[in-house]
Amino acid sequence: MRFSLGCELVYQVTGSATLILNVEVMRNRAVSIASEHFTVSPVVLAEEHMAADTGNRFRRLILAEGEHTIRYEAEVEMTARHEDPAAIGEVPVSELPLEVLPFLNPSRYCQSDELARFADREFGALTPGHSRVAAICDWIHDEVDYVSLSSDTGTTAKDTFTTRSGVCRDFAHLGITFCRALGIPARFVSSYAWQLEPPDFHAVFEAYVGDRWYLFDPTRKAALDGLVRIGQGRDAADTAFAIFYGRMKPKPMRVWIERTDPHAEEPPTTEAVSISAD
Amino acid sequence: MRFSLGCELVYQVTGSATLILNVEVMRNRAVSIASEHFTVSPVVLAEEHMAADTGNRFRRLILAEGEHTIRYEAEVEMTARHEDPAAIGEVPVSELPLEVLPFLNPSRYCQSDELARFADREFGALTPGHSRVAAICDWIHDEVDYVSLSSDTGTTAKDTFTTRSGVCRDFAHLGITFCRALGIPARFVSSYAWQLEPPDFHAVFEAYVGDRWYLFDPTRKAALDGLVRIGQGRDAADTAFAIFYGRMKPKPMRVWIERTDPHAEEPPTTEAVSISAD
Amino acid sequence: MRFSLGCELVYQVTGSATLILNVEVMRNRAVSIASEHFTVSPVVLAEEHMAADTGNRFRRLILAEGEHTIRYEAEVEMTARHEDPAAIGEVPVSELPLEVLPFLNPSRYCQSDELARFADREFGALTPGHSRVAAICDWIHDEVDYVSLSSDTGTTAKDTFTTRSGVCRDFAHLGITFCRALGIPARFVSSYAWQLEPPDFHAVFEAYVGDRWYLFDPTRKAALDGLVRIGQGRDAADTAFAIFYGRMKPKPMRVWIERTDPHAEEPPTTEAVSISAD
Amino acid sequence: MRFSLGCELVYQVTGSATLILNVEVMRNRAVSIASEHFTVSPVVLAEEHMAADTGNRFRRLILAEGEHTIRYEAEVEMTARHEDPAAIGEVPVSELPLEVLPFLNPSRYCQSDELARFADREFGALTPGHSRVAAICDWIHDEVDYVSLSSDTGTTAKDTFTTRSGVCRDFAHLGITFCRALGIPARFVSSYAWQLEPPDFHAVFEAYVGDRWYLFDPTRKAALDGLVRIGQGRDAADTAFAIFYGRMKPKPMRVWIERTDPHAEEPPTTEAVSISAD
Repeated sequence: MRFSLGCELVYQVTGSATLILNVEVMRNRAVSIASEHFTVSPVVLAEEHMAADTGNRFRRLILAEGEHTIRYEAEVEMTARHEDPAAIGEVPVSELPLEVLPFLNPSRYCQSDELARFADREFGALTPGHSRVAAICDWIHDEVDYVSLSSDTGTTAKDTFTTRSGVCRDFAHLGITFCRALGIPARFVSSYAWQLEPPDFHAVFEAYVGDRWYLFDPTRKAALDGLVRIGQGRDAADTAFAIFYGRMKPKPMRVWIERTDPHAEEPPTTEAVSISAD
Repeated sequence: MRFSLGCELVYQVTGSATLILNVEVMRNRAVSIASEHFTVSPVVLAEEHMAADTGNRFRRLILAEGEHTIRYEAEVEMTARHEDPAAIGEVPVSELPLEVLPFLNPSRYCQSDELARFADREFGALTPGHSRVAAICDWIHDEVDYVSLSSDTGTTAKDTFTTRSGVCRDFAHLGITFCRALGIPARFVSSYAWQLEPPDFHAVFEAYVGDRWYLFDPTRKAALDGLVRIGQGRDAADTAFAIFYGRMKPKPMRVWIERTDPHAEEPPTTEAVSISAD
Repeated sequence: MRFSLGCELVYQVTGSATLILNVEVMRNRAVSIASEHFTVSPVVLAEEHMAADTGNRFRRLILAEGEHTIRYEAEVEMTARHEDPAAIGEVPVSELPLEVLPFLNPSRYCQSDELARFADREFGALTPGHSRVAAICDWIHDEVDYVSLSSDTGTTAKDTFTTRSGVCRDFAHLGITFCRALGIPARFVSSYAWQLEPPDFHAVFEAYVGDRWYLFDPTRKAALDGLVRIGQGRDAADTAFAIFYGRMKPKPMRVWIERTDPHAEEPPTTEAVSISAD
Repeated sequence: MRFSLGCELVYQVTGSATLILNVEVMRNRAVSIASEHFTVSPVVLAEEHMAADTGNRFRRLILAEGEHTIRYEAEVEMTARHEDPAAIGEVPVSELPLEVLPFLNPSRYCQSDELARFADREFGALTPGHSRVAAICDWIHDEVDYVSLSSDTGTTAKDTFTTRSGVCRDFAHLGITFCRALGIPARFVSSYAWQLEPPDFHAVFEAYVGDRWYLFDPTRKAALDGLVRIGQGRDAADTAFAIFYGRMKPKPMRVWIERTDPHAEEPPTTEAVSISAD
């Protein structure tokens, strides 16, 4: 699939400020970036950095007093891998690749230790594999209400489990937490999301089942094979799209993604989808 | 039913200490105290106080350096009120007696505000009444594991809901929390509990349904009509059996209760039980 | 001092709703109510209840669909007791009146157990008495920023201690928490507050020192002898001015209080102030 | 300095279990490993993995029913870099190497967002640089009590800040949290610690000041230049020395480290110490 996507962010700075951005499409072999443009007006230096462990691409901007417009545009081509979910089993901890083991640990927003007993009670007896993670997503979709503005940057999986409300990042954190509690490595993915309404940055998660990372979206708001990855990490603490040092006010942002290859409107896939470089 | 009950507490004091005790049977018209003895050895003054709002009986002891043995014994007669659960409905907030309204508020250990959405999803559609509170107790019994030493004095209903483990006080806190979230007044009750194994102080809760307070025990560890009340309050913060000021070490305590009127071993009642003075 | 005070609350109800109000001046011997009027338009029944343990006055209103205006007005005369702070000592737990002991326990918003070590380190060596509680208030005033909208109904003393920001109710909760941690009984007081800018309901606290309850306001926003009490309790969970059951939207409310006896603008008192019935 | 160090861990396994160990000395150019031995008896396969982002070395052992003894021994030589603290300034976020930026984010145990206001009030006006981080360590040493067994695996910096008690890992988490809140990158370090009494694994932290990572130990329990690194990461969630899957019981473990080159007992250094490969 081919996509045209981008975002426009406008900030009103008082004094001066340093901004760390993570909005560019992750570079890896699962995606081919035909073209991309990153502009800041008025023009400033925008240093680049790619994290060694995750491939997340960061920009650092030092902004003077006044209004600044940041615009990113890209044309990308992406081929999702589709598999039969029934054929994807789980890998016991004793056989997992050692580099995925850190994704079994609890993290800032994912207290998999505290939720272990519940996860075992609710999902422990299910057949291990892709279908078990799908069952976790069904549970989250059914038992947690998607409520805009119901959470903030301090909200954890424990909070979401208690209040039964949240937004996409909270849904992803809860999915990650249950997976880790069951011994399934899981990580957070931020992305541009085709068909998401209204358009916005989107948060989903990946679980390591079978022999690779598969995508899951407990909100059911976007097509899995239309997720163009920006960042990945343990949880949202690793993948904020913007971090500020100094005083600035954001204006409403715009995010867009359109499919640019010929296609009929397809129904959402029921297959397992993987779009990962590892 | 007639019971012979009591407890023996031994403390090793360093320096001097003040001890506030709440282990005596609550005086109210639901129970008749045939005899009771409260002794401290070596002998010290033991001031008495009965809380105006709850009827809880407190003792204050000022203890010098050394070992102190506190012993309480009582013979009581108690008549539980048995009703048909199916005949006990709920009272809407608009018609509740105004004096029970404070038992709808969240308290130290019972975050009924945070758990409101879950309570409504899980129990909101059930027929209001005694049977709905019984369903809450069944849920707690089935979904939370009774695990000795799994909680401490800071553990709240939110924690128990998350970790799915706890002891009797945690079970009671969770029951109270769900009730309040649904608009059912609920309060904490500490007691001597006939048939509890091993013998100990026991925590249960009361919900205000129909026209009075009914007892509930989500642990299913004791007979409801064998609960001889010590204290009642919003939650465990109101009903600690011992509070210390100063340095002392407790030795293992003994608690006992025996039925003293002739009786066959009866199966646990399936009726609604109320033993309250209000 | 004589005051004319009141409030006007407007609610837009959808469907129907039950409202529990606690906005009327507490009746006790420390205040004389010359006149008061409570009106609801359109007219509905407004049941009254006075809590046995606190003297808090509640109203229950059952409101139909539509807009409802609630207005309370009172003329009161109040005589504060002024004492020399230096003459007010603390009472050891071993000698406190037994009925104030529950105000040593932790409560919903006041985790005095968790903050005990800090309280002892920071205030433990100060001379016991009114001046120690004044020092606690100075500490809160200096170390916590008063930031409008920085907290919500879930915010606890532990949160305020961590984030170092809050509003009047958070300041009061933190003061109560430190006092209890030091063995000084403390309780929450909601009030009309003369000279508070902008006019609003105000939250302060009382500590039991010497032989009575003295008022403290760590925000320093109002005159202590101009606090006309509405409610008192363990913390804000006991003294909400309005609790809703059903769906309603509040419109902006008005609260007012004016001094009506002849007086010069007096500087804030440096004396200890008590206006309590106990 | 040359050290002979090691540990012996004994586990009693029921059924079978998978164990992930992180007890071997980190391989990097700051340390030279003259020899090392890793043995398990009875013999099992011990797969090795070195994390790409941190250099942490993991072993995975699959253990059958019964008792297993794991022993690690190493002879290492390490040269610490000593600098004049007064010459080490801070680097503004606008100039930090981009790869250290993730160490400014909050993590599982380090809520630097919630403690930002306190950090700024207490340390914000101090001269930036190594001395400011040293002042943070002094503050922790003075204001938090080192109390064995006072925390567990769920304890966060917010908890430690509130309760003012903890062990080495809690001290490190609090130091990391304050640094990040001030814009100073900070990370967790687990180590063998020369002179630590009683011998055990030890947790300290590193802050990025000047042009490199410097070591800090708010517990003041070990010599900075005698810290032989095992693991590093955002916080303790990244550097557990043992993670279990399955049922096993640990027996008391032994940890040792001795200095093997000729040396007089030296007083603790007052210089800034860096022993890092980055």
